[in-house]
Amino acid sequence: MAQVTTLPRNQTAIETATAILKQRFGNRLQLGQAIRDQHGHTTTWLTNQAPDAVVFAHSTQEVSDIIQICAEHRVPVIPFGTGTSLEGHVNAPGGGVSVDLSQMNQILAVNAQDLDCVVQPGVTRSQLNTYLRDQGLFFPIDPGANASLGGMASTRASGTNAVRYGTMRDNILSLQAVMPDGQIIRTGGRARKSSAGYDLTRLLIGSEGTLGVITELTLKLNGIPEAMSSAMCSFPDIDAACQAVIATIQYGVPVARIELLDQLTIQAVNAYSKLSLPDTPLLLLEFHGSEASVAEQAAIFGEIAEDMGGHGFEWTVSAEERTKIWQARHDAYWACMQLRPDAQGLATDVCVPISRLAECVTATQEKLNEMNILAPIVGHAGDGNFHTLLLIDKDNADEVAKADEFIGWLNDLAISMQGTCTGEHGIGQGKMLYLKKELGPATDIMATIKRSLDPHNIMNPGKIVAL
Amino acid sequence: MAQVTTLPRNQTAIETATAILKQRFGNRLQLGQAIRDQHGHTTTWLTNQAPDAVVFAHSTQEVSDIIQICAEHRVPVIPFGTGTSLEGHVNAPGGGVSVDLSQMNQILAVNAQDLDCVVQPGVTRSQLNTYLRDQGLFFPIDPGANASLGGMASTRASGTNAVRYGTMRDNILSLQAVMPDGQIIRTGGRARKSSAGYDLTRLLIGSEGTLGVITELTLKLNGIPEAMSSAMCSFPDIDAACQAVIATIQYGVPVARIELLDQLTIQAVNAYSKLSLPDTPLLLLEFHGSEASVAEQAAIFGEIAEDMGGHGFEWTVSAEERTKIWQARHDAYWACMQLRPDAQGLATDVCVPISRLAECVTATQEKLNEMNILAPIVGHAGDGNFHTLLLIDKDNADEVAKADEFIGWLNDLAISMQGTCTGEHGIGQGKMLYLKKELGPATDIMATIKRSLDPHNIMNPGKIVAL
Repeated sequence: MAQVTTLPRNQTAIETATAILKQRFGNRLQLGQAIRDQHGHTTTWLTNQAPDAVVFAHSTQEVSDIIQICAEHRVPVIPFGTGTSLEGHVNAPGGGVSVDLSQMNQILAVNAQDLDCVVQPGVTRSQLNTYLRDQGLFFPIDPGANASLGGMASTRASGTNAVRYGTMRDNILSLQAVMPDGQIIRTGGRARKSSAGYDLTRLLIGSEGTLGVITELTLKLNGIPEAMSSAMCSFPDIDAACQAVIATIQYGVPVARIELLDQLTIQAVNAYSKLSLPDTPLLLLEFHGSEASVAEQAAIFGEIAEDMGGHGFEWTVSAEERTKIWQARHDAYWACMQLRPDAQGLATDVCVPISRLAECVTATQEKLNEMNILAPIVGHAGDGNFHTLLLIDKDNADEVAKADEFIGWLNDLAISMQGTCTGEHGIGQGKMLYLKKELGPATDIMATIKRSLDPHNIMNPGKIVAL
Repeated sequence: MAQVTTLPRNQTAIETATAILKQRFGNRLQLGQAIRDQHGHTTTWLTNQAPDAVVFAHSTQEVSDIIQICAEHRVPVIPFGTGTSLEGHVNAPGGGVSVDLSQMNQILAVNAQDLDCVVQPGVTRSQLNTYLRDQGLFFPIDPGANASLGGMASTRASGTNAVRYGTMRDNILSLQAVMPDGQIIRTGGRARKSSAGYDLTRLLIGSEGTLGVITELTLKLNGIPEAMSSAMCSFPDIDAACQAVIATIQYGVPVARIELLDQLTIQAVNAYSKLSLPDTPLLLLEFHGSEASVAEQAAIFGEIAEDMGGHGFEWTVSAEERTKIWQARHDAYWACMQLRPDAQGLATDVCVPISRLAECVTATQEKLNEMNILAPIVGHAGDGNFHTLLLIDKDNADEVAKADEFIGWLNDLAISMQGTCTGEHGIGQGKMLYLKKELGPATDIMATIKRSLDPHNIMNPGKIVAL
């Protein structure tokens, strides 16, 4: 198992800083064990390392004040959004103060003509899209969980729409952030492009709170397409499905979503959602555009799918049907958990060039069979990114060891294919070892940057790179 | 006038390092004044600051060797591609060694299934697109000049296609680079997305050679669209043209290019290219997609243009007609120079939210008239980015002072509109002052990063941020 990081803790300093913060924030500083545990890591089986205190910030200036107090006393600061990250990002290995940003949840501006908006970091993607709907706009990044936008930026999240709309990296125009000394910076304005110096926006995106706290985001928006349609098609095997994906992308079909569900996932989904999908791998697609365009896109995909041996191709523009199809995809996690209800689920996250996707997924299935691990697979196939959900009894040391071995094997395989150990979940604590394997000397550069901006290592320490 | 940076030079160290390099590289190290001047700044009227030597590198290892030698003696290293940058990027204010990468011009791999390729930094965009054509692929970034891809990455270049395909920021999967201590790093692999630690790829893109030398690029490619069509439409004024741009983007038309030419540019183009375009602002567009899609896109734009008072809307799918339309656009620079053949041209590069574009361009025209400066305007209107080409007698101190005043006024105006002083040309020496005005404390963060990665300030010193 990926071990959680452990760091020395400075009890006296933590108590001093906490006392000062208590005076400043009153009841917005919480010390109860339950709330502290909630703000430690909860979404995988990594050990929970609760912070010593949780403070609910209401403004950028307050975040700056908190960081200055913590900086003075060398106390760790761990930013917290909704806690849906998967690699121990919000754990407090050296103790410290969790800065909960969920109450900084104002949508500050929507500039419809410019297709952008300005939001506080605690705004969730659902909240934003509900707010935008009446204006015919939407924010496309959908990582599954109803995460906060600050958290999504911090982990460089993506999800099912990335094949068309990109990831958080591509959908943020600029940020406001509080740096490790409390300084407040803006990384840019609202221009659609800029070559004004180092790309601090992109440096902060994916930095997982280790370089500063994001306190405001200027996001790109899209018009809600005139038409959306969905399609699904079963394939005899993973290879045929992946070949269809490659051909679709190569043809230039601007597909919005193209998701792969393996046979085991289909079985789980059929049982859970009372469906009767063919017992073979499936591709689920969504097309966005004009009425004519989505019809054309579906027709082209239909032909490609047939060429690759696909069967049961279905296409629908009905909103109800679309919802049904995608509900099954969104419920896949819960459906898969039902394959072994007493187990803990552990999601992997490799991403490989799509020419290697079939080979990577097939080898993964063989390895899982060989190791006798139950693990359905879903993939954001257009990006070459897939998740295996390992269903493991975490109290069984043998199973845990096997899971650990498998994860190492899979990450190594993806790296050997010029891929990555993490397409969208981030490094956190869980993948620090693999980041080193993947990028070698580049991680030294990351450590140098971290040390230069955060010399006392107070910002979310023990994540991404060891210092 | 933007002043060139001056830095102290260490004559003894430069001579020592040059002698060592001469021994290592023989005739590939050049000391002649002419070649040194060519490698200093030439493309604007900033003073040429020639390097002391020019060395032609043939491999990443050679670049590393050069940097190690220069690092040991604290001698500046200035990376050089084709020398088409516009803000003094290749000047050598403290002397030093220009590393010419133009002979590292191999296309190392094209992965058609993955829509990516791996190239050396001296490959130019034309060279790459000629090479790719037979495979039905292309690289979309077109900054006008036939720049090297390493240089385009270093300045975060974009151009006419950015409204659809993004900038260099969006079209690079990963980089290999030599850092200021000679260490060779890779920032990633070929996965379409990654959340593996700090985004060093994006940190290097736009860093203008101040953090390291890019020695290999893994680029995203696109399939050549099934169909391309062009359109043009004249408008009664800038505001009407800009309103048509906003409506087109808002409607979600995936326009590939949407270029604005002001009345003065039209007059220049008519004279130079023997055309008879109406004597009013013009929008030039290009659409990419399927046959049906480009027809639909053009039809939608045609309706929008009519609503906004456009006249003379023409649309063509003929390759010959398309070439003619775009040739006029590409010749606009030369056409505009003919408005005052004895003048020097100086291009500005502000970018504003598109809702402010009409206001910004109109105010710019008024200011130019008021100051009696001749300066036609072309714009990448879909991005809110436009260039005024100031036609100035650089030997006339009054004109130079006026140009300086105007540039400051325009950059301040763009910044006040939440825009940027540079959409695509970069900071170099010419815009250091404005970067500070635009981003304030964020430039301190840039300086901290620069100092941490390049403690002896040898990598392209005197650019982006003052240390």
